[in-house]
Amino acid sequence: MTDFRPPGFADVEAAGRRLDGRVVRTPLLELPLLNERIGGRLLIKAEMLQRTGSFKFRGALNFLDRLKPEDRRRGVVAFSSGNHAQGVAAAARLLGVSATIVMPSDAPAVKLEGTRAQGAEVRLYDRWREDREELAKAIATERGASLVPPFDHPWTIAGQGTAGLEMFRQAAERGLRLDAVLVPCSGGGLVSGIALALSETSPETAIYSVEPTGFDDTARSLATGRPVANPPGGRSICDALLSERPGVLTFAIMERLLSGGLAVDDRWTQEAMAVAFSDLKLVAEPGGATALAAVLSGVFEARGRTVAVVCSGGNVDPETFSAALGSARHGHGSARPGRNGS
Amino acid sequence: MTDFRPPGFADVEAAGRRLDGRVVRTPLLELPLLNERIGGRLLIKAEMLQRTGSFKFRGALNFLDRLKPEDRRRGVVAFSSGNHAQGVAAAARLLGVSATIVMPSDAPAVKLEGTRAQGAEVRLYDRWREDREELAKAIATERGASLVPPFDHPWTIAGQGTAGLEMFRQAAERGLRLDAVLVPCSGGGLVSGIALALSETSPETAIYSVEPTGFDDTARSLATGRPVANPPGGRSICDALLSERPGVLTFAIMERLLSGGLAVDDRWTQEAMAVAFSDLKLVAEPGGATALAAVLSGVFEARGRTVAVVCSGGNVDPETFSAALGSARHGHGSARPGRNGS
Repeated sequence: MTDFRPPGFADVEAAGRRLDGRVVRTPLLELPLLNERIGGRLLIKAEMLQRTGSFKFRGALNFLDRLKPEDRRRGVVAFSSGNHAQGVAAAARLLGVSATIVMPSDAPAVKLEGTRAQGAEVRLYDRWREDREELAKAIATERGASLVPPFDHPWTIAGQGTAGLEMFRQAAERGLRLDAVLVPCSGGGLVSGIALALSETSPETAIYSVEPTGFDDTARSLATGRPVANPPGGRSICDALLSERPGVLTFAIMERLLSGGLAVDDRWTQEAMAVAFSDLKLVAEPGGATALAAVLSGVFEARGRTVAVVCSGGNVDPETFSAALGSARHGHGSARPGRNGS
Repeated sequence: MTDFRPPGFADVEAAGRRLDGRVVRTPLLELPLLNERIGGRLLIKAEMLQRTGSFKFRGALNFLDRLKPEDRRRGVVAFSSGNHAQGVAAAARLLGVSATIVMPSDAPAVKLEGTRAQGAEVRLYDRWREDREELAKAIATERGASLVPPFDHPWTIAGQGTAGLEMFRQAAERGLRLDAVLVPCSGGGLVSGIALALSETSPETAIYSVEPTGFDDTARSLATGRPVANPPGGRSICDALLSERPGVLTFAIMERLLSGGLAVDDRWTQEAMAVAFSDLKLVAEPGGATALAAVLSGVFEARGRTVAVVCSGGNVDPETFSAALGSARHGHGSARPGRNGS
């Protein structure tokens, strides 16, 4: 079943045709007041409006769709803290494939419930005492099921890249060229897929990964030219962005096509969640808001540029969400432009 | 400036051409899990993604755009608890018209700030001691400015109706015919505009207004065949839906084209806000969630039907939003379908 050639633009294009009509063409939103605030043009790819509340459905559906019929009959297994879980579960259900998902027992309730609601079997594991990858492989071997990798696979990467094809077309429909695209990053599946999508449609666009401070393995790997892991002991509210190091395939693509990696503090991610709430009327989960946070914080200077940020997911518990709104408002100033800014 | 002929389908069509490219074509969303939950097909018109966070921008822009140049130069005045205020302020700004908005001092902070952020002058009034309509008229007279009515004007109604044209086309693009459309209702501008839009494109569609319990003047007016007011002393979290009675024009249109009026309790509106958060990743304000609440509560039986609900706005303070999420989750059961529902 595996196919470990590094994927290219043609694979993303093929995935786009394959997924057409089965994934949501999520809107590319723009707000005049946000543009004024940053002094540039800010486009928001609202991927939380994708099925299952994150971009992961794209890669999962592309992967399952490419499995041979006999492999599909034996079912699939995946390990995930939540978004990949839901993406695989929903894709499996759509194609009539049985799915078992290995999830940490402390995953956000909204993600556990969302995965179960898609009809998948959830196998909980203890994040501190069990190895989820070993567990998933054991289940896969026992059942003859296919393991669906969360990011480091050509089919997965190509599927995620379809979000990039959409962004390019949506910008072009408005006569816009993208100076830069910022993408939340964990293992790198989404940003490398988007980089492939833009490599031929918009090669002048600068592409950046955005990670939480303390989990910026991609940024440091890109800076040093070899994949490095995160130091132990880090903490972040971005539960979807805690992977330890870039993938083999994703790093090869990112090294070739990315302009660099950025890191943002959680307090700015909370601010971005608050701005998504108050100005965009969108629910962003912490990990989904890092790219927007990079622009709002000034970590990425957007003045005078046309910049697209991907908001990659919206699966967040009410408590975490409410805390972000409260923190941003009582933290470092209002999320809203002042009257003088108008 | 006034033009008090009742508007018709042609006026909505003309507004559609006039607003094209200047209003957001908001998405018509659909979730397989919500479809299963209700046993039908549920389409959600996400009008909180409209500029200024509610449908009001449509009617305001159509109104201001139709003013004569000499009237525009003298500015506009409006009274509103918030959404109309922001819609008028943003439309005025887009067209370079000065705007003064009369708002209650206890309006949600997000709506006051949003109006000011659009560059409008805000004149606060005391809801219990001052008459906002008299106040707005006095300002208009003093300055020779035009009063922008919140709902009872042909230009306003035609502008709001463009949401209905979009819904019809978006459904048709997917090969769907709408059995019913449910619309949050205060003065009736949005629902009567949508009714006009569907009157020629989809005359078989049943259209309903949805109001909060205690403020169902439209439902009772439609039932009795004459416009009646709400009894005093009612309370609702739906700050955008507290108008006292239907308009003259809107009632004439609704009486002719609506199938009836529905009312939902605030607790179901909170549940709908929670479902919009957890499943749709959208921020709905209380008044924007009543139509979705009517379907989720069973007040409207959607089983076996294709039903579109308008989510008309998302301008809500964090406290009210967080309270709704908490209340829905700790109130009458989970907002999520159980595992057996899959």
